[in-house]
Amino acid sequence: MTFRVRIEEAVKKNCSNIVLALDFPFENPANRQTLCTRAERVLDAVYPYICAVKINHHLFLPLGVFDALQKVLKKVHEKGLVAIADAKINDIGSTNQVIAEYYFAAGFDAVIANPFVGWEEGLQPVFETAGKYHGGVILLVYMSHKGASEGYGQTVADSETGQKQPQYVLFARKALKWGADGVVVGATYPDKIRKVREVLGGKIPIYSPGIGPQGGVIASALESGAQYLIVGRAITAAENPAESAKEIRNMAKAYLNKL
Amino acid sequence: MTFRVRIEEAVKKNCSNIVLALDFPFENPANRQTLCTRAERVLDAVYPYICAVKINHHLFLPLGVFDALQKVLKKVHEKGLVAIADAKINDIGSTNQVIAEYYFAAGFDAVIANPFVGWEEGLQPVFETAGKYHGGVILLVYMSHKGASEGYGQTVADSETGQKQPQYVLFARKALKWGADGVVVGATYPDKIRKVREVLGGKIPIYSPGIGPQGGVIASALESGAQYLIVGRAITAAENPAESAKEIRNMAKAYLNKL
Repeated sequence: MTFRVRIEEAVKKNCSNIVLALDFPFENPANRQTLCTRAERVLDAVYPYICAVKINHHLFLPLGVFDALQKVLKKVHEKGLVAIADAKINDIGSTNQVIAEYYFAAGFDAVIANPFVGWEEGLQPVFETAGKYHGGVILLVYMSHKGASEGYGQTVADSETGQKQPQYVLFARKALKWGADGVVVGATYPDKIRKVREVLGGKIPIYSPGIGPQGGVIASALESGAQYLIVGRAITAAENPAESAKEIRNMAKAYLNKL
Repeated sequence: MTFRVRIEEAVKKNCSNIVLALDFPFENPANRQTLCTRAERVLDAVYPYICAVKINHHLFLPLGVFDALQKVLKKVHEKGLVAIADAKINDIGSTNQVIAEYYFAAGFDAVIANPFVGWEEGLQPVFETAGKYHGGVILLVYMSHKGASEGYGQTVADSETGQKQPQYVLFARKALKWGADGVVVGATYPDKIRKVREVLGGKIPIYSPGIGPQGGVIASALESGAQYLIVGRAITAAENPAESAKEIRNMAKAYLNKL
């Protein structure tokens, strides 16, 4: 089963398109056991309302991918969810290959990568390694923060046609050309989601972060064409993470039923 | 003492501008102790001929930044060298801040980041966190691989003037504006090093990877304006790493004396 099939199974099982971003604030590394326990508790509480868990350096660094993080990954899979390594891979090919090998060997189902590094000696080995593990590759197309306009939003001369194009449109085209399993477009920029949906023509699902503290709104993201919502602090920092996750899942579900 | 002063002290002590990229091929995580031993052995052999050690996901992932990698970092500092975390940071600000906090808390002297994510809610918190630790921030300006032309080499409309500019020239200007402690430009592209040196006007040192297996040549990189040479496999995969490091150091030294 490919990553795309596996995440779709989890969506059906939990009637949820919510990807939990399992991020916590910086913790003194001496207390990192607390972080691990906290991550496990949140998972135990919210797993019925999500389809996937996105893990990044917030946990990779203090826990260690082959050390304490293994407990978290095991729980993700026990709960029937998939795990996405949000490493935003952007190195040279030989290093990218090793990075991808480690994340897939650690048990991740997909990795997130930055198309800015290009294909040759860039992301090609990431796609090849993912294929070997039946894993997914999700590409950054427009990130959710303010400074995203500087890079993802800049105007670029298309190297093939010479025509001016927004950077993110070129990235969306690369996602199609390279056979990506998903793209990331910030929920904070619904107009960009709409444009990317047009370019992708429904062939690649859009993952949308920035719901909650960053200002992205569920309805506008879904209406614009996001298929998955990535939600972090609105769940992990909530007084009752389970209730918050359930509420967000239900809002998204209700909205999708209306579309 | 700032990072720039610390690395300069190491340069003087060892008469070397060589930054060792301490990378090894993928290793079955079950055997990761071998990797740690191998890294320590290479350091023990080559430390008199280098000024700094650049560590990336090749070691972060299998060893864990707060686990086995601590032994390697301790040795780097015991030998009077500085440690650079080549994480190519490219996330949103709140995550970038946590990433930078962990690397500096782990003992790294500098981090490498990708200016593509912009300043606001992008790299600003990385520079602030580095300042708190008297650490350095080194920005990617043109990477050493073939696909680098797709992103770093693309033509972009300058958001302030509307004029067409190569992406890497805009990145070099951001390095000046943001007060970076170094920039990375591939030794494989000496013409780009020359152009970046022009933009930087000697205010920020250029670090140049790609010497050896990637085809970059020591003389052309230094002649074009690189101040530090980043060398990985030409040392780590050599039959005799110490001899190889000494030879590369001496070649660079001889060339710099001639300039």
